[in-house]
Amino acid sequence: MMLEGIRVLDLSRVIAGPYCAMLLGDLGADVIKVERPGRGDDLRYLRGGTNAMSAPFAGCNRNKRGIAVDLQKPEGATLVFELARGADVVLENFLPGVAAKLGLGYRDVSAANPRVVYASVTGFGQDGPYAKRPGYNTIAQGMSGIMGLTGMPGQPPTRVGASVSDLAGSWVAFGMINAALVHRERTGRGQHLDVNLLASSMALLPDPAAIYLATGERPKREGNRNPALTPAEAYPTKDGWLNLVLLNEDQYARLCDVLGDPELTAERFATNEGRLAHYADFRARMEAALSRATTAEWVERMERGNIAAGPIYEFDEVFEDPQVKHLGLVAEFAQPGLGHARVLGFPARASATPASIRRPAPRIGEHTDEILQELGLAREEIDRLVAAGVVWRP
Amino acid sequence: MMLEGIRVLDLSRVIAGPYCAMLLGDLGADVIKVERPGRGDDLRYLRGGTNAMSAPFAGCNRNKRGIAVDLQKPEGATLVFELARGADVVLENFLPGVAAKLGLGYRDVSAANPRVVYASVTGFGQDGPYAKRPGYNTIAQGMSGIMGLTGMPGQPPTRVGASVSDLAGSWVAFGMINAALVHRERTGRGQHLDVNLLASSMALLPDPAAIYLATGERPKREGNRNPALTPAEAYPTKDGWLNLVLLNEDQYARLCDVLGDPELTAERFATNEGRLAHYADFRARMEAALSRATTAEWVERMERGNIAAGPIYEFDEVFEDPQVKHLGLVAEFAQPGLGHARVLGFPARASATPASIRRPAPRIGEHTDEILQELGLAREEIDRLVAAGVVWRP
Repeated sequence: MMLEGIRVLDLSRVIAGPYCAMLLGDLGADVIKVERPGRGDDLRYLRGGTNAMSAPFAGCNRNKRGIAVDLQKPEGATLVFELARGADVVLENFLPGVAAKLGLGYRDVSAANPRVVYASVTGFGQDGPYAKRPGYNTIAQGMSGIMGLTGMPGQPPTRVGASVSDLAGSWVAFGMINAALVHRERTGRGQHLDVNLLASSMALLPDPAAIYLATGERPKREGNRNPALTPAEAYPTKDGWLNLVLLNEDQYARLCDVLGDPELTAERFATNEGRLAHYADFRARMEAALSRATTAEWVERMERGNIAAGPIYEFDEVFEDPQVKHLGLVAEFAQPGLGHARVLGFPARASATPASIRRPAPRIGEHTDEILQELGLAREEIDRLVAAGVVWRP
Repeated sequence: MMLEGIRVLDLSRVIAGPYCAMLLGDLGADVIKVERPGRGDDLRYLRGGTNAMSAPFAGCNRNKRGIAVDLQKPEGATLVFELARGADVVLENFLPGVAAKLGLGYRDVSAANPRVVYASVTGFGQDGPYAKRPGYNTIAQGMSGIMGLTGMPGQPPTRVGASVSDLAGSWVAFGMINAALVHRERTGRGQHLDVNLLASSMALLPDPAAIYLATGERPKREGNRNPALTPAEAYPTKDGWLNLVLLNEDQYARLCDVLGDPELTAERFATNEGRLAHYADFRARMEAALSRATTAEWVERMERGNIAAGPIYEFDEVFEDPQVKHLGLVAEFAQPGLGHARVLGFPARASATPASIRRPAPRIGEHTDEILQELGLAREEIDRLVAAGVVWRP
C-alpha cells in the first residue's frame, strides 16, 4: 500500500477534512477518526441519515477506525494528545485557535512529535480578517469567484451544485500532506500546513484568474458557450444535451460531413468569424440538425468523425456510462448502519500500490477500546474513562 | 523547499498536466518542461497571447525550465528518454499509447529508472471504451455530472465557468505523485499513476454521488437554494448578492434581530417547516429586507450576529477582498514575453518549507542549451542537434 505505516489522526468533521483523511486511508494509511461522544460527526445525519450513518458519511469515512472522546474534558484532550504524539499526520478543521486551547495545536503536538505533518483545514486560513469565520462550501463558492463565473449570460451568479469548495480543500490538503511527508522522509522534519477553502477554491481558477489579472476585465458569464469559438457549446438533441468542442476549420468540415445539412457548408458559415457573425442563424440550423438524433447517436457519430463531443449527463446517467463502469468508480462494501454502501471509489489508479477499501466507515466510538489498548491503557482504566464520560463506546 | 532535489520531467500540455507540474515546482522541484520546437504549448496562445506567452501560460508554467525537442525525430525522443532516466517524476498527457510509441512509455522509462513516479493524465484513463478520446474540460464536465447538478431549477445543465475538470485532474495528479514519492522514499519503488479528467471531476462529487447511489433518485438542479433548509440560499442586495447559510432555529432568531423586520418573526415563519410551507411569501419578505443595504453592509451585520453569510463576488471583486489580499493569493513577477505577470499564487501555506516563485515561465526552448549541457552534451553536439532540427533554442 502506498501509505503503509503512515498513521493519521483525523480530528476533522463534515466533508473537507474527513474526505482528505479517507483518501490517505484508501492509500493504506492507518486513520483514526476522533468524534465527540453521542452525536459524532454532523455528516452522519445528512439528508436523514439513520443509525448515525448517512450515505455521504460512509462515502467520506471508509478505511478509518473510530474513537469517541470528549475533548472538553482534560483527560479526553490528553488521550488525544497521546494519539497525536504517535501520529505521522494530524488533520483538524477547528476554527483557528480552538485546537491550541485544547492543548492540541501544532505547537503542542510538534513539541512532542517534531516529525508530525499537521494540517489545518479552515474556511479562510489561520489568520487574517476572516480567520474566525466558519467555512461553508456555499460561502467559499461565492467568495472565490466560481459562482460569479458560472451561469447563463445576463443571469445571476450560479452555485456549482456540489460541494466543490469543500472538495477543493480536501484535494489541496491531500496533496500538501503527501508533499510534506516526502520532505519529512527526506529530512526528518514535520511542519504545519494551513489550507483553506477560499484559496483552495480559487486554485480551481488559475486560467480565468490569469486572464482577469492581465486584462482587468470582468469576465462575463458565458453559460454553456465559448463566445470566441463556434461551435463550442452545448446543444439540445432528441433526448438530452451534447457538448461540442471544435477548435479549427478542419474539424468544422468534418462536422458538416457528420451533420449532413448542406446549408451548414454555406459560404457564410465557412469560418469561425462567419459563424460568429451569423450566430443566431447558425445556432438555429445546428439545433435543427442535432434534434434529429439522440445524444448517444451523436456521440458515436462524432467519434467516428474525429470530433470532440460528449453527452451532458443528468447525474444518474453518469453511473450508466460504459467508461465510468470500466473504471470501476463505484465502490461497494458492507456498511454497518447502512447495510450496503455504494459510494464513489478512489479516482486514480496506481500500478504498484493501488488504493483499496479495507474497512467500512466506523460507528461512533466503534474502536474506542482497541485504540486505547494500543495506547497501552488497561481494560479497567478504559472502563473508568467510559464511566467518567471521557470516552464512549457503543 | 518541500520538494528540493526532486527532478520532474513535464511532457504535458495545456492546463491539467502543466499546472500540476507547476505546483511541484512551486514546492521546490526542479521541473523541466519539454515543448515541440516552433509553436510550443498551445496554452501560450490562449486568448490572443502574444510573444508565445499568454497570461494563462505564465500562470501554469512558472518555476520551470524549458527545452524544445522534436519528439518525432528518433534523436529527440532519445534525448528526452535520457532526461526521463534521471527524473524522479515524469508527467505526460499524450493519448494512451503515444508515449510508448515514442519509446517514452512507463515500461520504457521504468526499465531504465525503476524509481520513477510516472504520471499519465488523460481524459478517460489508459484503457476502456473511451481511452482514445482526447480530454477536454467541457466534455469531462458534461460526463462527470457536475453540469447536470449545476443550474437553475427547470433550466438546462450548466457548465461551471472555469476549467474545473482540468484542475481536478491537476490536483488529483499532484496528490498522487506526492503519495507515490512517499512510497518511493520508503521502499525505493516507483510506479505508474493513471489519472483522468472524468474520474477526477467525479472526485469533486462524493456527497451527491453517495446520496444518488443510496436513493436512486436523480438530483434536481437546485440553483442557488438549498431546498431542504430556508433561508440557505442567495439573495439580491442593494448592490449585489449575499449567500446565507442557516442551519437551525437559534440562527433564525438571530437573523430576525439583524434584519429588524417584525413580520419575519411571525408564527408562520417560526420554523424551517413553516418557512418552507410559506416559501414565496417568506422569500419576498427576505428580498425586501435585504434590498435595503449593500452586500458589504449585510456581511458585516451578519458577522456581528454570528450568522454564516458571504458575498457572491463577480470575478474582479474577488481580488479586492481583504482576506484574499491578506493571504497573498496573487503572485507577481517579471515575466519575459509578458512584461509583468500577475497570476494566482500557491493556495496553501507551509510553516517550514513554503512554496516560492523562483523563476518565470520559460520561453520555448529557453534552457535547451543548459539542460543538454547538464546531460553531458558538448557544445558542438548541441549545435549539431539544433542544425538537424532535433532541438531548438531561441
